[in-house]
Amino acid sequence: MNSLDWIAVDWGTSHLRVWAILDGRVVAHAQSDRGMGILSRPQYEQALLDLVHDWLPDADTTLVVACGMIGSRQGWVEAPYRAVPCMPQGTTLAHAPTVDKRLNVVVISGLKQSMPADVMRGEETQIAGFLALNPGWDGVICLPGTHSKWVHISADEVVSFQTYLTGELFQILSDHSILRHGMAGWDEAGFADGLAQGLERPERLSSRLFSLRAEGLLNDLAPATARARLSGMLIGAEVAAAKPYWLGQRVAVLGDSALADLYARALASFSVPVTRHDVADATLAGLSAARAAYLKQDQPCEN
Amino acid sequence: MNSLDWIAVDWGTSHLRVWAILDGRVVAHAQSDRGMGILSRPQYEQALLDLVHDWLPDADTTLVVACGMIGSRQGWVEAPYRAVPCMPQGTTLAHAPTVDKRLNVVVISGLKQSMPADVMRGEETQIAGFLALNPGWDGVICLPGTHSKWVHISADEVVSFQTYLTGELFQILSDHSILRHGMAGWDEAGFADGLAQGLERPERLSSRLFSLRAEGLLNDLAPATARARLSGMLIGAEVAAAKPYWLGQRVAVLGDSALADLYARALASFSVPVTRHDVADATLAGLSAARAAYLKQDQPCEN
Repeated sequence: MNSLDWIAVDWGTSHLRVWAILDGRVVAHAQSDRGMGILSRPQYEQALLDLVHDWLPDADTTLVVACGMIGSRQGWVEAPYRAVPCMPQGTTLAHAPTVDKRLNVVVISGLKQSMPADVMRGEETQIAGFLALNPGWDGVICLPGTHSKWVHISADEVVSFQTYLTGELFQILSDHSILRHGMAGWDEAGFADGLAQGLERPERLSSRLFSLRAEGLLNDLAPATARARLSGMLIGAEVAAAKPYWLGQRVAVLGDSALADLYARALASFSVPVTRHDVADATLAGLSAARAAYLKQDQPCEN
Repeated sequence: MNSLDWIAVDWGTSHLRVWAILDGRVVAHAQSDRGMGILSRPQYEQALLDLVHDWLPDADTTLVVACGMIGSRQGWVEAPYRAVPCMPQGTTLAHAPTVDKRLNVVVISGLKQSMPADVMRGEETQIAGFLALNPGWDGVICLPGTHSKWVHISADEVVSFQTYLTGELFQILSDHSILRHGMAGWDEAGFADGLAQGLERPERLSSRLFSLRAEGLLNDLAPATARARLSGMLIGAEVAAAKPYWLGQRVAVLGDSALADLYARALASFSVPVTRHDVADATLAGLSAARAAYLKQDQPCEN
């Protein structure tokens, strides 16, 4: 590679993604599964170098801007949470300790909320990027995922947010509960059924779960229907509970995954105005905004 | 051992309990962890004999009356479900195939409900025993456990019932979710907090779960508080959802476990009239009632 200005990094619990940026454009991309979950502190620098060392000019220091769980207490360096309400990104970044002189690694802080207690790391950068790409946008951002988040945005600030364990509940029920015996595949009608159940009576989740098992025993419920209905029930219950977030608001769903489709469909059933947005674009825009703020602060005005 | 009339057996997924009965009284008891979950069909007879072979008179056949998952399709012999509304026990029992001539093993059928789909195996015997011990009782029976059940009883019949996955949810969240990092011990105040949350807003379960994690990160929530609060949230959400069962009814909680205490406390917070009853007593009374029905049917009237 000939040249680059800086490196953008999205480093979560189970993934590491890096982009080389020159003149505001991506000129190289790489990724690995060496997420925070499997690394100890001395291993972070090498995990990063394994992906980017060919990109680094020998004579110079390259700025690396990272977001995600890498900034947690168990990560490379702790980047303290900032408390909402606040802008999604602040001006202070945490410096990660490095041995290789070619690296200058800074990590973006996550956000915290005291009541109800909640935290995010990584999503704040996607939010900042989304707002950079959509200046002046007010409304609610929905970020589907293992721990999905609903975020109220007003006047460029994160006012409040709420995280749901929905995706993880789906995984552990599929893998570890009595339901694991009859879950495989996908069936659209099953999702629609489950969604309607979850939206209508979210408080019945725990009994509806056992009903899935009973229908397997009594009515030979197809594994594809059971799995899709479980997903629908869980997402339906989440969307019903998140009503104070989306009611009377426009909602931006960040994500191009199949999961994001399901959330968009659930919201559409309430005629909520929904737009869809690319997560990678938002992440890069957010990392870019963080770099700009860092450069501005790091290089004092000369005039 | 000198003598016995018959053997009562409670055989679930993870346990096997046997009682030798003479003149209506328990004269011996044994148990093992050789539940249905770890046995294949040819192994059942030996698992039973390992506990009872010393009890069996050589010259005679001993009646063994069993309830529980042993009667499921994957059990020793399938005892077809009976459909509610119906009496908790019927007159037909399934004969399990045996090689040892000293054994005559019969298995009690479970109950099924078509809408919403639900099943029970074992609890029907506890219910029958409870009703034998409390003749003419009407109301709602609550059976706490891994899959807790609420059962509406009227005129000696099971009118309807509902199973909740609450106990299993607690287990898999404690063992396999992100919450596993901060869960240990027990704290009464934490249970009371979680119970209030679950009762008040059962539909918020999925977001409250993540809040537990966030409070651990932000406020160093004690693991004992987190674990008790999780239990309270789940039981509270169940009791709230089961309101159509207990509202305006008296409730008999079957169980002397710590878990049964928690259910009784949750119900007491709504001033529901609650009585507590011993499960082993109810199980034995139910097995005894099944034996009496079997003897009556098997030995035609002689006058």
